[in-house]
Amino acid sequence: MTDWKAEIEAAAARIAPHVVKTPVVTVQGFGLGYPVEMKLEQLQHTGTFKARGAFNTLLASDVPAAGVVAASGGNHGAAAAYAAHQLGHPAHIFVPEMAGPSKIALIRGTGAELTVVPGQYANALELAQAHEAQTGAMQIHAYDAVPTVAGQGTLMREWEAQGLQADTVLIAVGGGGLIAGAMAWLGGARRVVAVEPVTSRALNAALEAGAPVDVEVAGVAANALGAKRIGRICFDLAQSTGATSVLVSDEAITAAQAALWRERRLLVEPAGATALAALMSGAYVPAPGERVAVLVCGANIAPDPLG
Amino acid sequence: MTDWKAEIEAAAARIAPHVVKTPVVTVQGFGLGYPVEMKLEQLQHTGTFKARGAFNTLLASDVPAAGVVAASGGNHGAAAAYAAHQLGHPAHIFVPEMAGPSKIALIRGTGAELTVVPGQYANALELAQAHEAQTGAMQIHAYDAVPTVAGQGTLMREWEAQGLQADTVLIAVGGGGLIAGAMAWLGGARRVVAVEPVTSRALNAALEAGAPVDVEVAGVAANALGAKRIGRICFDLAQSTGATSVLVSDEAITAAQAALWRERRLLVEPAGATALAALMSGAYVPAPGERVAVLVCGANIAPDPLG
Repeated sequence: MTDWKAEIEAAAARIAPHVVKTPVVTVQGFGLGYPVEMKLEQLQHTGTFKARGAFNTLLASDVPAAGVVAASGGNHGAAAAYAAHQLGHPAHIFVPEMAGPSKIALIRGTGAELTVVPGQYANALELAQAHEAQTGAMQIHAYDAVPTVAGQGTLMREWEAQGLQADTVLIAVGGGGLIAGAMAWLGGARRVVAVEPVTSRALNAALEAGAPVDVEVAGVAANALGAKRIGRICFDLAQSTGATSVLVSDEAITAAQAALWRERRLLVEPAGATALAALMSGAYVPAPGERVAVLVCGANIAPDPLG
Repeated sequence: MTDWKAEIEAAAARIAPHVVKTPVVTVQGFGLGYPVEMKLEQLQHTGTFKARGAFNTLLASDVPAAGVVAASGGNHGAAAAYAAHQLGHPAHIFVPEMAGPSKIALIRGTGAELTVVPGQYANALELAQAHEAQTGAMQIHAYDAVPTVAGQGTLMREWEAQGLQADTVLIAVGGGGLIAGAMAWLGGARRVVAVEPVTSRALNAALEAGAPVDVEVAGVAANALGAKRIGRICFDLAQSTGATSVLVSDEAITAAQAALWRERRLLVEPAGATALAALMSGAYVPAPGERVAVLVCGANIAPDPLG
């Protein structure tokens, strides 16, 4: 049984010199009648929370001379490449074509070797695993490994230290690494609402089936949230801590993305707006007096707004 | 003699329910070898600090039935219109054509009456003054009035309460309302560096001449920083507190704008990147150990990145 508090405390100490302590803000708006606490994790290195898990994994390991290998819909690959570069390791990243030019450019910019794989995440993962077997490079899993989850868990630890008030925290779910870290840190102390697109509902389907199952992935947030199957660590924590699972439409995600820019000048990718979409669309309606928080988790939109 | 501490304290109490307490973050990057504290004031209502001065002016006044009138390069007009709407007053905003479609749409979205005036800020100001004389509507000056400056001064008060460490704070200057508020609050307690585009150097020219003088305005930040003449309040405070004046090129501003997006996923307008441009370009070089802070002040870019 993993001692998550200890894992996350150790991760926080390891990664502190390497990550941004991202800011928090409380805002009114978005057509809601109540304030929302937000953590702006899209200001993290490479634009998402993924740098936390990547740094923790590398710093907790004896990295082989062949360096690191990662498969990624884009965001994890960028974080793994960035962390490897900062720590002086070679990196080879396998990205599915659907990641899109912005995320691919982000990875290329770190100096990592990059292979763009036709198809989806699972196809990239297969090639990354073959590369690992061939070269002895170290795999960094995008979401379903203890060092990854513990790294992502430092985010909720940090947020609480910054004075988080919320009874309920809404978090977007892809493979489940971010929300697993939050659930692991909180241990049921606050309500966690898992928000997934209707079009990429790996956790929702798993909770329904009683075990992780494969789902089809599509939709506007697929290149960040489109995991075919929820991670086992996330699934177990969601069951044991009683997380609430809700779904949002692509239209709700796009509306939340527009509202974040129009009202608050936060430009995020669809995945970064997915948690807010649950409030704006009414997929999750807080009880009177219930204090809510939204984790804004990614900003790597395409096309690049500065061209 | 204005008691600025008292004015700013009173302003802070007045506007607290109406403005966003904007977040702060400390980051490494931008090719600099030292950390930079930032306040993300572009997350304020209508995308700039201007809401602070607008709310303070309205809340400190008996607003006439004819409501309020403002002349603005865009950002002040949007803030005045927003504040008037929130407080239930009619508003008529005069905007120079050069403000651009994004800022004009932002103002239109508040429900205010809007007149787009061919030419520059001075032309819009002339029409606004005529409207004031005709209707009895109340003028909100964009930068050179005590309630405006006191409102903007609440920003530096808030930043200090959030734990600002910096010895030196870099602030972009247009008409000088924002930096005047900062200088008024600080009273020389930290170094204030006034950053202007070479192409819109109203404060720099005034300090050189020993008095406010007219300058030509142009360049990438002109629709936010393009004041023809520095405000008298700003000029007097800059002289009495010994502010440092530096200039940056349009290229340096554009490079800082790109770096804020590429490295930190902060999408800002050129004016919002102007203070950082002074560090990145070497227009201001901190001494060894000197701690610096950059105020990020505006995000109303054109074209709209979400179309």
